[in-house]
Amino acid sequence: MSEIAPVLIAGQWRAANCAETFRAENPITQEPLSGEYPVSAWEDCDAALTAAAEAADQLLEISPKRIQKFLLRLADLMEANRESIGQLASQESGLPEKRLAGREMDRTTDQIRQAADAAADRSWKQISIETKRDMRSMLAAIGPVAIFSPNNFPLSWNTISGGDFASAVAAGNPVIAIANSSAPGTTKILAELAFQASQEADLPAGMVQFLYRLSHADGKRLVADSRIGATAFTGGTAAGLALKAAADAVGKPIYVAMSSVNPIVFLSNAIREQGEELVNRFGNVCLKGTGQFCTQPGLAIVIDGAESQGFIAAIKSKFDESTPGTLGSKKTLENLVAKIEVLKKAGATVISDEGKSKGEGYSHPNTLFQVSGADFLKSPAALQTEAFGNAAMFVVCQDIAEAKAVIDSLHGQLAGCIYSSTDGADAAAYATLAPRLRRKVGRFMDDKMPNGMPVSIGMGHGGPFPASGHPGFTSVGIPNAMRRFAVLQSYDQARHNHLPEELQNKNPSGQLWRNIDGQWTTGDVADA
Amino acid sequence: MSEIAPVLIAGQWRAANCAETFRAENPITQEPLSGEYPVSAWEDCDAALTAAAEAADQLLEISPKRIQKFLLRLADLMEANRESIGQLASQESGLPEKRLAGREMDRTTDQIRQAADAAADRSWKQISIETKRDMRSMLAAIGPVAIFSPNNFPLSWNTISGGDFASAVAAGNPVIAIANSSAPGTTKILAELAFQASQEADLPAGMVQFLYRLSHADGKRLVADSRIGATAFTGGTAAGLALKAAADAVGKPIYVAMSSVNPIVFLSNAIREQGEELVNRFGNVCLKGTGQFCTQPGLAIVIDGAESQGFIAAIKSKFDESTPGTLGSKKTLENLVAKIEVLKKAGATVISDEGKSKGEGYSHPNTLFQVSGADFLKSPAALQTEAFGNAAMFVVCQDIAEAKAVIDSLHGQLAGCIYSSTDGADAAAYATLAPRLRRKVGRFMDDKMPNGMPVSIGMGHGGPFPASGHPGFTSVGIPNAMRRFAVLQSYDQARHNHLPEELQNKNPSGQLWRNIDGQWTTGDVADA
Repeated sequence: MSEIAPVLIAGQWRAANCAETFRAENPITQEPLSGEYPVSAWEDCDAALTAAAEAADQLLEISPKRIQKFLLRLADLMEANRESIGQLASQESGLPEKRLAGREMDRTTDQIRQAADAAADRSWKQISIETKRDMRSMLAAIGPVAIFSPNNFPLSWNTISGGDFASAVAAGNPVIAIANSSAPGTTKILAELAFQASQEADLPAGMVQFLYRLSHADGKRLVADSRIGATAFTGGTAAGLALKAAADAVGKPIYVAMSSVNPIVFLSNAIREQGEELVNRFGNVCLKGTGQFCTQPGLAIVIDGAESQGFIAAIKSKFDESTPGTLGSKKTLENLVAKIEVLKKAGATVISDEGKSKGEGYSHPNTLFQVSGADFLKSPAALQTEAFGNAAMFVVCQDIAEAKAVIDSLHGQLAGCIYSSTDGADAAAYATLAPRLRRKVGRFMDDKMPNGMPVSIGMGHGGPFPASGHPGFTSVGIPNAMRRFAVLQSYDQARHNHLPEELQNKNPSGQLWRNIDGQWTTGDVADA
Repeated sequence: MSEIAPVLIAGQWRAANCAETFRAENPITQEPLSGEYPVSAWEDCDAALTAAAEAADQLLEISPKRIQKFLLRLADLMEANRESIGQLASQESGLPEKRLAGREMDRTTDQIRQAADAAADRSWKQISIETKRDMRSMLAAIGPVAIFSPNNFPLSWNTISGGDFASAVAAGNPVIAIANSSAPGTTKILAELAFQASQEADLPAGMVQFLYRLSHADGKRLVADSRIGATAFTGGTAAGLALKAAADAVGKPIYVAMSSVNPIVFLSNAIREQGEELVNRFGNVCLKGTGQFCTQPGLAIVIDGAESQGFIAAIKSKFDESTPGTLGSKKTLENLVAKIEVLKKAGATVISDEGKSKGEGYSHPNTLFQVSGADFLKSPAALQTEAFGNAAMFVVCQDIAEAKAVIDSLHGQLAGCIYSSTDGADAAAYATLAPRLRRKVGRFMDDKMPNGMPVSIGMGHGGPFPASGHPGFTSVGIPNAMRRFAVLQSYDQARHNHLPEELQNKNPSGQLWRNIDGQWTTGDVADA
C-alpha cells in the first residue's frame, strides 16, 4: 500500500483523519495515476476551521502588503514550476500540456497578481464617508472561506490558484481549499507552493489549508459551520444546490456557479454576411477543450430560412469531421451521456453524433441537436439542460417573436451573445431580442464567442440563478470578485483613533479611492 | 357589513380576491378601528406579478429622471398630508402623533428625497469600464421587488414610504408592497399618494402595487415566483426565515432584517466618569417608543464591581419609575411575553418588572433582567433572544476575559457599542473587546446609543445573520441600500451604440461617477 498524501492543516502537512482514500485517473489512458489521497473525516474540517478562525483573528492586525507579497510570490513560484505543473495537470485532466503550462498558466498568474495589487491598494472596499454626521463604512474581510472547484480549468479555476482563491485571499481571508477529486496531484503541488509563499510572507499558519475530499455530509456541515465566513462553489447543480441549502439555512453567504447553456443568437443577416467565419468560430468554441467551458455556447438560436439551414448544415459537418476530444474524467463522461438522454427525451433531435473518428479515453461523439422553437417552448426547462462537454443545440425559430419567447423561457445564464449584421439589416430584430437576452445573462456580448474570460474590472461572470446564486456579484474580475468575500462594516461616530486606517481622515496611501460626501477622491477628509 | 378596502393592482384600485378580511385595532383603546381589509388570495398576487413584470420591461426605456420626479412628488404629497397621516398612524400604532407627523415624517421624506436624487444621479451603479479590452459593467435594476414591513416605524419603515421602498424604486424597480397588518389604513393612504405621484410622473401602471395581507403560503409563493426580482423583509424571525427558505430554494435574492439585541458594553471607567448621563441615556433608549426599535440595546455587558452595581441599580430605578408605554399591537405584546418567558427559562433573573405604574392598552411592565457572564455562557443562544419591546438585560461579567467570551458567543447583530472613559483608563479593555464586537455587528459605535439611524452613505444597517440575511449589504443609507435591488450586468465588447448610456464613452451627465481603468472620474472615456 502506497503512502497516503498528507493534508495541510494549521501550517502542518500531516496525515489525514480518513477511513477512505481515492486515486486520480488519466482520462486519456484510463489508467490510475500514482498517488493515493485521503477522504478527510470531519475531524480534519474541525481542525482546519479552528485554525482558520485563529488566522482570521490574526489577519486583523496584518498589513495588506503581506497579502500582496504572498500572492505575488505564489505567482512567481507557479511560473517557476510551469512545466511540472502543466505536465501533471495534463495527466489529470486530459487537456493539452501546452495550453496548461502556457496560456492558462499566464492567465492564472495574471489573475493572482491583479488580486495581489488590489489587496494592497484597498480601493475595492467601497469606502464611504459622510463627514457631517461622522458616519463611515467599508467592506471588510468576511472570515474563513471554503472553496470547492471544478477541473475544467485545472489552474485558473483551481481551488488553490484560481479566481475564488485569489479574490478570497485578497479580500483578507484565510482559505480552506478542497481539491477537485480529479486533480488531487496538481492541487497538492499548488498547495505546497501556496503554503511556501504564505510562510515567506509571514502569514498565519491557518492562512491556506488544504483537504483533498470530503463526504457530502461533511461538505454541508463545513459550509454551515459558525466559524466559516463564506463559501465559493463552482461545479455541478446537484452538489451546488445541496451546499447552498445548507449554508442558506444558517445565513452563511455562499456563491455558487452552476449550470449555464450560454445562448447565442445568430441573426439571419449576420449568417449571410459572416457565414464561413461564424461556422469556424462556433464550431471551434463548441468543441475546443472538448466543450468543457462553463461558458460554452450550448444553445444557438436561429430564425428558420436558407441562411440558418446552411449554417446548421455546416456546423453539422464540423461536428461530424472533428475528432472528439477527451473529457476530464469518467464522471464527466457519464454526466454528458445522462444529459444527452435528458435532451433527447425532452424532444431534441440528434443531427450529428456519429462522427468520422473516435476520441481517445473518456470521450463521446461530438453531439449536435436541433429542435424547433415551438418544441422548445413545450419543455423549456428540460431543453436548456446543460450537457457539459462537446454537445450543442440549435433552436430553430419560426420568427423573431418565437425567438423572443424562447429567450424569455430561459433560466439565468452566465453569458449570452447576439450576432447581427454590420449593415443594419438585423437592427430591428436585435432591438427586440437584446433587452430580453440582457436580463437573462451576467455577461452580454455582441458578435463574440463567450469562451474568453478576461480578468477585468468590467467582467461579469455570474448572472441570475442557476448560473450563479446571487445576480449582484461576479466570480471573475478583480477587484469586483473580491466583494463576495466581504461584510459591510459601518462606524457611527467612532473615535477617530478607533477607526481603521482606511476610514481615518488622512488617506493612508494617498492613492486609496474613497467616496467622501458623495465625491470619489484619493484626498484626505478635509479638517472641519 | 362595511365595504372592504380595495387593493391596488395594475394601476387600478379594485376589489380584492379574498375569502377573509381583517381589521386594525387601536392598541391604546384596544378597540377596532374603522376599515375592513382583505386578505388577498393568490389571484391578486398573480395579477400584481404580471403587471409588475410588464412595468419592469417598460422601465428599461424610462429615464431615471421620471423616477426622481415620482419620489420627490411622493415626499411632497406626504408632507402635505402630514397631519392626517400622523393621526391615523398614531391610532394604528399607539405611538405619539407628534413623533409621527414630525420627526419621523421628516426622516422619511428626507430618505425618499435622497433616493430620488440618487436615482437620477446613477453614481450608485458601480460603473466599471476597462478600455483596453472594452469590458464594461454596472449594476442594473433587478426587477419587481416584494416588500414586507414592520410597524414600529409606521412611516420610515412603511412598506410604501420606507427605506426598502425608496431604495427598490430608486434602483429602477416596480414594487409589490404588502402592508403590515397593524397598519392597513396608514399604508393605504401612503399607497394612494404613491400611486398619484407615480401617475403624475407617467410611470407604468404596475410601478406601485399594494396588497394588505397574504396567507403564509402565498407569501412564500410570491417571493419564489419567477417574475420576482428580489424581496425585502423586516420583521420577526419565524416569518423571515420561512420567506428566506422559499426564496433561497429558487435562488431569488431576499434581504431579511430579523432579530438583534444590539449589545452595548459599558466599561467600568466610563460608568465612573459619565454615570448619571449614561443612566439617563440607556434608560431612555430602552423604554422610548416602548423599546420597539430594531436597534434597541437589549443586552448590556458590564464588568462586576461597584460601578456596574450602582449603574444597574440606577437603571432598575428608571425601569421601576417609568410608566410603561403601549406596544404596537396585541401580537407584539404576546410576543414580548413569550420571549420574556424564554429568557427566564434560560436562567436570566428578573430584577424589575413591577413598576410603580401601569401602562395603557397593550402594555407590559418595563422588564429588566440580570444574568452573570458564566450563566450567559451556559445558554448563549437562548439568552440573546430578542424580547422586542420595553425589556433589557444586563450581563455581569467577572472580568474582561469573560466579557470577551460573551461577545464571542453572540450571533450577528445590527449594532453594537462600547462606552469607554475618555481618560484612557479603559483603553486596554477596549482594545481587547472592540475587534470581537466589531465582527458581530453591522454598525459599530463608540459612546453612543444605537437608536438614531441617519440615512447616510456611511450607514450600515445589516450585519451577520440573523440580524440580516447577507452581511455585505445595508438596508438603510442612500445610495448603498439600493445595491440590494440590482444585478451586475457586464458588456463584453458590445458595439458602442448598443451600450446603455451610463457605459458609453461620453459621461451622460458630466456628473456620473464611473471607474475607468481603475480611476474614479466624472469625465468621458478618452478616445483611443
